Amino acid sequence: MTFVSRREMLAGGAALAAASGLPCVAPSRAAAPLAGKQAPGFYRYKVGDFEVSVISDGAVQFPIEGFVTNASPDQVKAALTSAFRSTDGLTVPFTPIVVNTGSKLILIDTGLGDAAVERTKGSAGQFTANLTAAGLDRKDIDAVVISHFHVDHVDGLLTADDKPAFPNAEILVPAAELTYWMDDGEMSRAPKGRIEGLFRNTRRIIGALGGRVTPFEAGKEVAPGLTAVATPGHSVGHTSFVLSSGARSVFVQGDVAHIPVLFVENPGWHAAIDQDPVMAEATRRRIYDMLVADKLPVQGFHYPFPALAHIERATNGYREILVPWSTSI
Amino acid sequence: MTFVSRREMLAGGAALAAASGLPCVAPSRAAAPLAGKQAPGFYRYKVGDFEVSVISDGAVQFPIEGFVTNASPDQVKAALTSAFRSTDGLTVPFTPIVVNTGSKLILIDTGLGDAAVERTKGSAGQFTANLTAAGLDRKDIDAVVISHFHVDHVDGLLTADDKPAFPNAEILVPAAELTYWMDDGEMSRAPKGRIEGLFRNTRRIIGALGGRVTPFEAGKEVAPGLTAVATPGHSVGHTSFVLSSGARSVFVQGDVAHIPVLFVENPGWHAAIDQDPVMAEATRRRIYDMLVADKLPVQGFHYPFPALAHIERATNGYREILVPWSTSI
Repeated sequence: MTFVSRREMLAGGAALAAASGLPCVAPSRAAAPLAGKQAPGFYRYKVGDFEVSVISDGAVQFPIEGFVTNASPDQVKAALTSAFRSTDGLTVPFTPIVVNTGSKLILIDTGLGDAAVERTKGSAGQFTANLTAAGLDRKDIDAVVISHFHVDHVDGLLTADDKPAFPNAEILVPAAELTYWMDDGEMSRAPKGRIEGLFRNTRRIIGALGGRVTPFEAGKEVAPGLTAVATPGHSVGHTSFVLSSGARSVFVQGDVAHIPVLFVENPGWHAAIDQDPVMAEATRRRIYDMLVADKLPVQGFHYPFPALAHIERATNGYREILVPWSTSI
Repeated sequence: MTFVSRREMLAGGAALAAASGLPCVAPSRAAAPLAGKQAPGFYRYKVGDFEVSVISDGAVQFPIEGFVTNASPDQVKAALTSAFRSTDGLTVPFTPIVVNTGSKLILIDTGLGDAAVERTKGSAGQFTANLTAAGLDRKDIDAVVISHFHVDHVDGLLTADDKPAFPNAEILVPAAELTYWMDDGEMSRAPKGRIEGLFRNTRRIIGALGGRVTPFEAGKEVAPGLTAVATPGHSVGHTSFVLSSGARSVFVQGDVAHIPVLFVENPGWHAAIDQDPVMAEATRRRIYDMLVADKLPVQGFHYPFPALAHIERATNGYREILVPWSTSI
């Protein structure tokens, strides 16, 4: 057997190609254009009989300065560097999930909403496009369950023109969260930034929904297989969820720990966005101790997509071990 | 403002819904079917001006017994358990990449080929479907560069009916690898399993390609920005590549280290598939020391999709830190 190079074949290979019955190699081809576009951001896994579709809303870059209130920018940059991350800024991904229980489609948190596409030049507000790529439709969502009222978790409740984005869904919200943000007394006592930011934003959204939200209490089943767990600190009524079917469970944490290479690996660090950082830290340590003890995987809203991880103990606290991408479900 | 639950609204809310101008919530909806299908397995990143499309070929599960020749099944299971992996079997993913240099589309390794779809019940042989999902076409591939002649790296050179799968591509193969597998003397001296397996398989593929393969030497540029690096041991002519554009480089390792939670974290472990395991270990340590020293990211054929990682030193050897999924490129 001989080994014919392409060069040799092009030089004298027409007869050879004809003889072999193979198509003649084209001597030159147009360059393929760069795609310039990431793959759709969705991913599926099973929890017992349930099917989870992780739906990315994209990501936004934040300044490192000021993100952690009790560690210096140099300490934060060192943590990022040791994880081989850029120190030009802090990339914060947003990762809602849709749970199909077999009878209900339940969305947990929404991302920043379609209005964010223009504002972020497409880096966020990707939820709707990725939901569509996953073969799902906003009209088919039966319930939207909210962990807390920060913008990246609720703004997607509305379309870009402030209409309900999930017209057939019941909107389920933590009672403690709803009470706090809708209380005029609390608003009057809040710092100005929080009044003009989250208080007004929450009221804008609840108003656009015509007040049609269903409060739920922690400790209760919000839907079959989905139990609310009080995890206060990040916000007053911040709530997480245990999703269970058969022998399998996942802890859907919301923001118990924000970016994991910072706050899982350094659970004593306080995020500027934590409303009560001391309570947030206590909650974080309590929950992460439980995740380790129970070997319970965690779905983290600000974890790297697809944002499902196991937790182990490490030197300064914990370490997240992302579940490897499965090429089948 | 009042908070109306869905139940309350359904009981008496028609007038309220009409008054608000919002669509009336449908009282019951058909359950959405489970999708039952994973997201397409492709992912993009840039290396300087180059665009890399990682294209999954799926995965196959292997028995744990016998996979590592110098560690017991219990040791292997302990390593898997500590990484929160199943010990029912060893999941081995296959991850070719396509590099668009701006003027050429270069595929590095092929996966198991379309014929594997039926044989593996769809768990592998996913390359063609994922290539299509990525908006690429086999006919547009200008060159296929092969790291070594194991079936998961070369079988996809042919279609299910043994025709060239990349009709317009030059097929570039390591000279040392080609010489070994096509040498009748080497074949005559090889163990029976290797004769009936890899020797015959290589000759079948080269035959179906009409001998049209271009051998290349290690140390040379196979294509602009893609340099071959001799990494023998896993096979006689096993070859890796440094992909470079501008200030960015990635080490495309082939099988220098197979499943990382086993062989990166325990570089002294020998895979049954390593032809010369002592040489393979020496190569592995040399290359991984370089990856650490040069902070060079590695694209690993058997790493979890999308199979791009940084390497750091750890207790027993090294640890892989998967690059977080970027929601944009």
